[in-house]
Amino acid sequence: MKEFVYRRRVQFPETDAAGIVHFSNFFKYVEEAEHSMWRAAGLSMATERDRGIGWPRIAASFAFRKPLRFEDEFDVHLRVAEKTPKTLRYSAVLRKDGELIAEGSMTIICVRRRAGEPVKAIDMPPDIAERFEVAALEQSEA
Amino acid sequence: MKEFVYRRRVQFPETDAAGIVHFSNFFKYVEEAEHSMWRAAGLSMATERDRGIGWPRIAASFAFRKPLRFEDEFDVHLRVAEKTPKTLRYSAVLRKDGELIAEGSMTIICVRRRAGEPVKAIDMPPDIAERFEVAALEQSEA
Amino acid sequence: MKEFVYRRRVQFPETDAAGIVHFSNFFKYVEEAEHSMWRAAGLSMATERDRGIGWPRIAASFAFRKPLRFEDEFDVHLRVAEKTPKTLRYSAVLRKDGELIAEGSMTIICVRRRAGEPVKAIDMPPDIAERFEVAALEQSEA
Amino acid sequence: MKEFVYRRRVQFPETDAAGIVHFSNFFKYVEEAEHSMWRAAGLSMATERDRGIGWPRIAASFAFRKPLRFEDEFDVHLRVAEKTPKTLRYSAVLRKDGELIAEGSMTIICVRRRAGEPVKAIDMPPDIAERFEVAALEQSEA
Repeated sequence: MKEFVYRRRVQFPETDAAGIVHFSNFFKYVEEAEHSMWRAAGLSMATERDRGIGWPRIAASFAFRKPLRFEDEFDVHLRVAEKTPKTLRYSAVLRKDGELIAEGSMTIICVRRRAGEPVKAIDMPPDIAERFEVAALEQSEA
Repeated sequence: MKEFVYRRRVQFPETDAAGIVHFSNFFKYVEEAEHSMWRAAGLSMATERDRGIGWPRIAASFAFRKPLRFEDEFDVHLRVAEKTPKTLRYSAVLRKDGELIAEGSMTIICVRRRAGEPVKAIDMPPDIAERFEVAALEQSEA
Repeated sequence: MKEFVYRRRVQFPETDAAGIVHFSNFFKYVEEAEHSMWRAAGLSMATERDRGIGWPRIAASFAFRKPLRFEDEFDVHLRVAEKTPKTLRYSAVLRKDGELIAEGSMTIICVRRRAGEPVKAIDMPPDIAERFEVAALEQSEA
Repeated sequence: MKEFVYRRRVQFPETDAAGIVHFSNFFKYVEEAEHSMWRAAGLSMATERDRGIGWPRIAASFAFRKPLRFEDEFDVHLRVAEKTPKTLRYSAVLRKDGELIAEGSMTIICVRRRAGEPVKAIDMPPDIAERFEVAALEQSEA
């Protein structure tokens, strides 16, 4: 899976008194898109958790270009921009009717969670690693 | 502990595009007040969780009278309105500068959470039960 | 429109450290279902706002029966349970794979918002009132 | 005002099913600290909004080092890291008992909002600009 498009509609509690989506929700949108991408790849972060593997976020950033408003429909274009043995970095581009709304990045790390042990970064399991390929940024997105 | 007053300021993401606090946050305010009340009573829901005891909410309600806005300061007046062996029902009155904003109710139940066992309602531990007394509703609040 | 079914999946930030959906989100789910119902009826709360009409919530309640967890899919069954000239009361039943999760109620009131004037409750416009009919509670739901 | 320290306690709905604070809340914490800093400087974003001036966020980022859990107390150390005629960039360092939790950055831009006009970036009013000075990063924070 190289790129994934996640369609979403702005819900009312995501807006703030300035009449636009509160910026913290953009980070939730990217994570939602990620989880949807994983499900589309036959994976589930919920299932991973059950086998003692977690994926904490170690970095996240956004540049905001245009606001989103209540009931707007938009797309999250999600790509794997970088892959190391223990980490994945996604790039995310939000568009509404083709117009650029925001561009972001989110990096996650694979950890083992076992009861009574400290959380420890580990190489991601091969069955997960092989599902994601780094996608070259197309020129139109540059 | 009979009544507890929790002071809070409205934060920006709690507002919505109508310019007022989104109604779902009132339920968060009551729970915050509850946790603060427990800490004031020398208890902690976090610690309880560690000894395998949880307090899920089984009912919650609110009647909304006046809106709250960004940066408003208000008080949650929290009381134990009913106590059974397994449950506590709180009543909550929100006031801003003395003015009634909203009135609510929240009922919690004591459960045992053990790995590999279904969650089960239990009598609340005596050291917790004895901390809370049912408070008669004063006439000024009627 | 008598009953409306809104399908939703639990998103990760809606869960809490007890491993289940935080109860305050159930109120958001009902409002999301309401907004979706309005759109299905050819209406939009966003558009109403533009013509100076708002719909604050004056009451909301829930009884919680079973928890929801990350990635669960569930349905909100939304009905208009009561209609007065100025208010609508919805009943909401949440089900996952047919199983009862929670039952709630939410009452909204029609208000006029004009710049420089106090917010005032008004009779709801006929084009809105005629869209919604009170639905009798079916026996299976009782 | 060069640096501002904002003390905060983790509230329960801010945690997620991984048992830690959901990363999107770190961005809310920084904004809360910012608003508190403004109030301490005799300013209020709510008041600014009333005179037609807004402060949308144009960029935000975080690197997450350690998790926060329910009831943890922590501090947001907020500084103005960069000031241009139209923008302020804050740096934020979150610490719990002195330990580094996360480091972030948030950039805001001054805009004029007038009814019927497009939102427009403007030079920030002098009475605001003079309140904030760029704080050199101390070596201990490097």
